[in-house]
Amino acid sequence: MSYGRTIREEFNHCDPAGIVFYPRYFEMTNSVCENFFREVVGYSYHAMMKDGIGVPTARVETDFRAPSRLGDVLDWVLVVEKVGGSSVTVQLDMGSGGAHRLTARLVLVWMSPEGRPARWPDPIRAVLTAHLETTA
Amino acid sequence: MSYGRTIREEFNHCDPAGIVFYPRYFEMTNSVCENFFREVVGYSYHAMMKDGIGVPTARVETDFRAPSRLGDVLDWVLVVEKVGGSSVTVQLDMGSGGAHRLTARLVLVWMSPEGRPARWPDPIRAVLTAHLETTA
Amino acid sequence: MSYGRTIREEFNHCDPAGIVFYPRYFEMTNSVCENFFREVVGYSYHAMMKDGIGVPTARVETDFRAPSRLGDVLDWVLVVEKVGGSSVTVQLDMGSGGAHRLTARLVLVWMSPEGRPARWPDPIRAVLTAHLETTA
Amino acid sequence: MSYGRTIREEFNHCDPAGIVFYPRYFEMTNSVCENFFREVVGYSYHAMMKDGIGVPTARVETDFRAPSRLGDVLDWVLVVEKVGGSSVTVQLDMGSGGAHRLTARLVLVWMSPEGRPARWPDPIRAVLTAHLETTA
Repeated sequence: MSYGRTIREEFNHCDPAGIVFYPRYFEMTNSVCENFFREVVGYSYHAMMKDGIGVPTARVETDFRAPSRLGDVLDWVLVVEKVGGSSVTVQLDMGSGGAHRLTARLVLVWMSPEGRPARWPDPIRAVLTAHLETTA
Repeated sequence: MSYGRTIREEFNHCDPAGIVFYPRYFEMTNSVCENFFREVVGYSYHAMMKDGIGVPTARVETDFRAPSRLGDVLDWVLVVEKVGGSSVTVQLDMGSGGAHRLTARLVLVWMSPEGRPARWPDPIRAVLTAHLETTA
Repeated sequence: MSYGRTIREEFNHCDPAGIVFYPRYFEMTNSVCENFFREVVGYSYHAMMKDGIGVPTARVETDFRAPSRLGDVLDWVLVVEKVGGSSVTVQLDMGSGGAHRLTARLVLVWMSPEGRPARWPDPIRAVLTAHLETTA
Repeated sequence: MSYGRTIREEFNHCDPAGIVFYPRYFEMTNSVCENFFREVVGYSYHAMMKDGIGVPTARVETDFRAPSRLGDVLDWVLVVEKVGGSSVTVQLDMGSGGAHRLTARLVLVWMSPEGRPARWPDPIRAVLTAHLETTA
């Protein structure tokens, strides 16, 4: 079960070559994860912050296969690849008009209010596990 | 006749105090103008760039009246305040949950492929004029 | 007595037209103010945050007179224009190679830990007042 | 032979938790690479753009080991890990106050004016090769 989100490429994302500047892609990967937690897991970053919780990104791996241009509609898909004790590995793929552009793999860690990695609470683990998917 | 657009405040927009960092508000004002040109004027920034045209911002004036917090849904409204020979003044107001937060006034200039301010083409002037509105 | 700071224009600041995207100029105005408080006033934003203090921007007014291109070295100058009870108005001018590009006027407000505008502490008011300057 | 660059963490880089938001780290990795090309290779991104050349990032891999806080002085070090036919792999390490925070590995590709990966020109290959270093 994957989670999808569409982002229109705007002026803000582009570099002088007219293509997405790669740090802006990471604003998008963060936004996709943020909305996944809000919409699917049911625990928004905002609610987490109030509770002293966070899910910082511990690792990022990204292959940029083709550039994206101003006006492109970027289709992002997130699948959960692995649920660890206190971490989750998600894979994000992005394409536009059916053509694949980018694959990113992120490891997020559940941090307790004490600022230490902690075991996922069961209800969250259950949702993450339900989104596990084998990726090619 | 006003133009509206909603932007959810995300992690990306916030400063260490947990409120929108003001340069991110200007990413939003640009996005609202960009989408107004695409959706209402019918001439996207992407199409303009192909034609060697641009509508750079010549002046910005903004009053920040109340802060916005992570998770807020920001409602932006754009009205055209004045259509000049080669410029347009737009007023953008932003609120959330009915409470007003910010007023911005921007002057955009129509730039010819030669990089000089030029007279608005009639069809564009007609659309801009149709969106003229008296603002309080 | 003015305060100066130099920022080299990099890829990160540019839009698809190869010039500084105006929200990035506001990242620069914030950086100039932030370093003015750290270096001149002697009270960094970091120290303020620890003390529950902030100096949010209440108003911005900017005239963009000429574009800046990748590789330009941007010379910023800040002068204090007016010191109010709980606010300060600063004027920032930016030029490159001697040519003037931009004037920005910002109003910052001293916010108490209770989140209300408060009277500048005397030592800070003294520094701000020492930087008062008549601007053309 | 490594290349170093120091970046002070400012408001602009921080997320609501007061630590560097990871997309801003990638603005920094890009800035370090950009300045390496300008200062060491002697071919700035600005000059490349005029020549129709680019060195887009094809792959990024980053481990975030410890967070960085507002006011930290971030010391970046770049070494060349591998010089391929048309690509270069660079490793960037960042620390502050002697404590290691982050390792990033980026693959950049030399793109011809025709928009295709092309063989490094000999003078550039020579400089890159001179910066080859075995990393732990």
